[in-house]
Amino acid sequence: MTTTEALKIYREHIEKMRALHHAMGVLSLDGATVAPAESAEGRGRTLAYLSGCSYQLETAPALKEAAEYLKAHSAELSAQDAREIEVFLRSSEYTASIPQDEFVGYVTLLNKADAVWHKAKLDSDYAAFAPYIKDIFETNVRFAKYYKPDQAPYDTALGRYERGLTMEKTDAFFGALKERIVPLLKKVMAKPQVDDSFLWGKTYPVEAQRRFSDYLMDVITIDKNRCTIGETEHPFTTMFNKKDVRITTHYHEENPVYSMYSVIHEGGHALYELHTGDALEGTLLRGGVSMSVHESQSRFMENYVGRSRPFIERIFPKMQELFPEQLAGVTAEQMFLAVNKAEPSLIRTEADELTYALHVLVRYEIEKGLFDGSITVEDLPRIWNAKYKEYLGIDVPDDRRGVLQDSHWSNGNVGYFPSYALGSAYGAQMLAKMKETVDVEAAIASGDLSPVTGWLEEHIWKYGKLYDPMELLERAVGAPFDPKYFTDYLEEKFTKIYNL
Amino acid sequence: MTTTEALKIYREHIEKMRALHHAMGVLSLDGATVAPAESAEGRGRTLAYLSGCSYQLETAPALKEAAEYLKAHSAELSAQDAREIEVFLRSSEYTASIPQDEFVGYVTLLNKADAVWHKAKLDSDYAAFAPYIKDIFETNVRFAKYYKPDQAPYDTALGRYERGLTMEKTDAFFGALKERIVPLLKKVMAKPQVDDSFLWGKTYPVEAQRRFSDYLMDVITIDKNRCTIGETEHPFTTMFNKKDVRITTHYHEENPVYSMYSVIHEGGHALYELHTGDALEGTLLRGGVSMSVHESQSRFMENYVGRSRPFIERIFPKMQELFPEQLAGVTAEQMFLAVNKAEPSLIRTEADELTYALHVLVRYEIEKGLFDGSITVEDLPRIWNAKYKEYLGIDVPDDRRGVLQDSHWSNGNVGYFPSYALGSAYGAQMLAKMKETVDVEAAIASGDLSPVTGWLEEHIWKYGKLYDPMELLERAVGAPFDPKYFTDYLEEKFTKIYNL
Repeated sequence: MTTTEALKIYREHIEKMRALHHAMGVLSLDGATVAPAESAEGRGRTLAYLSGCSYQLETAPALKEAAEYLKAHSAELSAQDAREIEVFLRSSEYTASIPQDEFVGYVTLLNKADAVWHKAKLDSDYAAFAPYIKDIFETNVRFAKYYKPDQAPYDTALGRYERGLTMEKTDAFFGALKERIVPLLKKVMAKPQVDDSFLWGKTYPVEAQRRFSDYLMDVITIDKNRCTIGETEHPFTTMFNKKDVRITTHYHEENPVYSMYSVIHEGGHALYELHTGDALEGTLLRGGVSMSVHESQSRFMENYVGRSRPFIERIFPKMQELFPEQLAGVTAEQMFLAVNKAEPSLIRTEADELTYALHVLVRYEIEKGLFDGSITVEDLPRIWNAKYKEYLGIDVPDDRRGVLQDSHWSNGNVGYFPSYALGSAYGAQMLAKMKETVDVEAAIASGDLSPVTGWLEEHIWKYGKLYDPMELLERAVGAPFDPKYFTDYLEEKFTKIYNL
Repeated sequence: MTTTEALKIYREHIEKMRALHHAMGVLSLDGATVAPAESAEGRGRTLAYLSGCSYQLETAPALKEAAEYLKAHSAELSAQDAREIEVFLRSSEYTASIPQDEFVGYVTLLNKADAVWHKAKLDSDYAAFAPYIKDIFETNVRFAKYYKPDQAPYDTALGRYERGLTMEKTDAFFGALKERIVPLLKKVMAKPQVDDSFLWGKTYPVEAQRRFSDYLMDVITIDKNRCTIGETEHPFTTMFNKKDVRITTHYHEENPVYSMYSVIHEGGHALYELHTGDALEGTLLRGGVSMSVHESQSRFMENYVGRSRPFIERIFPKMQELFPEQLAGVTAEQMFLAVNKAEPSLIRTEADELTYALHVLVRYEIEKGLFDGSITVEDLPRIWNAKYKEYLGIDVPDDRRGVLQDSHWSNGNVGYFPSYALGSAYGAQMLAKMKETVDVEAAIASGDLSPVTGWLEEHIWKYGKLYDPMELLERAVGAPFDPKYFTDYLEEKFTKIYNL
């Protein structure tokens, strides 16, 4: 074999896998957006077949042989090719550690679980969904043990989303956050609360909110020829290639701000995917490197851009145009304060920046407990509610607004949640670094976001998976990761807003 | 080999092909509905790969051997299994006659053509689309010759949509129609025209039209848990299984009737697919047997139900509720007359029942000419416009409303158009037979359509592909096909409406 031959074998397999993943992704997107309620069973059969094909391709002996040959001859490869082979081997090693029938069975399970979760959430019926949580977590523990028999399974799960992440590091991270956030939140709560009452008690028609979403996509510079928006129970982003990215949102007629921040958040994910370097397109290295880095981009756009004063000042005239009666007499400054109101609340995706990490902490501790057996699936709603009481001081009225609120577990995204808090912290460190050379507030105010998006493209987006997450972050900010940038940001912001 | 073993091999292949077709169908649906404009290229690569897999499965030697064994031992099979093997062998014989690279190349071509057609139609730019028409027709001629070297290629193309159909039969059919329709239309045009001016000059918001579609789907008894509606440039129906059927429509803000009849027409297709007999589900025999029979169901619902007086009387209150200002002072009788106004027009999908067949005739003659070389692609717009002048007496102002109006050619549906006129005629014969035992008008008026849908389910829908089209029709109506039922229906209806 020569490296040219081996690369040819490798590329042929990768292209076929790409096609299968594209098809599976569109089937799932269709299932979550517009497919009829009873379509899940047929889709499950199709996904099972396609995932079996994908499994066979990824674990094909010819591919393994080619990839290992290339690894052994990496000195003859371009740096990009060598990196791609490394990334491929990591992924295929994981896949190959799982027996094919279990791999396919898990895809079938998740497809079913998603349909059950949708209904269970609407009905606030935890009992209906519980067997699926049980099965999904048990499968994740089993898969983690197949892959790394000697490692704590939850460490393996965490590391699948963020290479190198462990419970020890996550505990330390959340410890650092709690130490600053909990007293800060206490001080905030002692102050007079921001008045956001003008946002409530009115109806914001979905049709006008749809137009608002279109506008917001333009404001944050999303190319609509390459990215469209759909509607789902739970907002998400999915991507097939640089010319085909999709975001979704969920409209709440009683409040336009929920969807507004879903669109900007998912838009941040989309921007990352839409700006992978051209040289990476068609390779395994295209797209976001990890979920934490992905969340750093989505939460950057949502919070550091979208919840800033100049951003609200910029978009407020459009809000008043779309919702003239609902926002009559309201000022941009009132809106700025309202979207930054810090207050313990029930729903993670609607939480303010200050309390957000506490929502994530609840989920992290629960996942850890489900993995080590200290929490049972039966006990989950009780534990969930107790943790919300402990960390956020609030009572959860029903499972719809409690343990059933997120789609992550039904989608098999176990070990994902810490990414949100880590991403916020990565993003804050990027913001601090960006501010050394970019007048971020001025760029937002000017309506030309390109100094901000240009920095992100230059330091993050274009690299795809060329570097591991921590290396990418360190190259971008010139220093190791430090959560203090995040807590400093929160302290500065909320000190001003609440006159602490 | 035993029949049990052979059936097992057969079923395994069929299930995999079903999965691939499901994935390809959802990718195409997504492409036509919500995918970003630039996504076509990536989708094309995926479709090419999946269609190659499907080709290999359908033409796999093991499958061929099993199917031929089963055919030779059909006496040992159930009637249904024997029929399924026959249907499979017909299809696989066609597929196997085409080299794989050309088969896959055609899928890629169509994916590209569809994107080009969308833009060309919007821009009324025939030149942009012409190379694709040329390529598509040439490919169809070549494929027809591969399959049946000794048969006129257009006969082969027609027979692919309607088994047994030939140019000779189609010529005779259109001859019989013209003989009655042309003089009837002349008489109609000599009478004072129906006044439908109240439908024009107003705006019918898309949001209200969407609610109208939801209502119409309920009225014609579509189970929304198994069928949803999307929006496309050109309305169509696509189906994956009995629990997953999709229809689409296109909203025109200037007139609610266009989308209304698209929804009812596509709804007729959907009902046929949603009511395949349970025993056929999962086999190749599920779903509509041919495009003509399919169109007989869609045009039955659209015209024989949807353009009837009791139907308009039933839905008119809802129309007034949704469009109160636009329809102020209008009566149900005025609406009934307006939706039955017979008048030569530009757009096939918006044509009245009387002139509709003439639109189809134009397309049929053009396809015939493109196949035999008497019409060139370059000449197509001129010929199109000349035929509209000749048969319908009208001038085509631009190609957007002329040769570019339909999506069929860009989708490779060459030889399909006669199905619409044949379907209308099949449907009229079914209606006549149905009226022997069902009070159709009373059922429509009552709001309980089940006597009508029950008859169609019992005589058509439940049989899937168990019988060839002509046999199915003859079993349903107890007589050979005769277009006079259709022309009688038109004569009776328009004599009354226009007081001829």
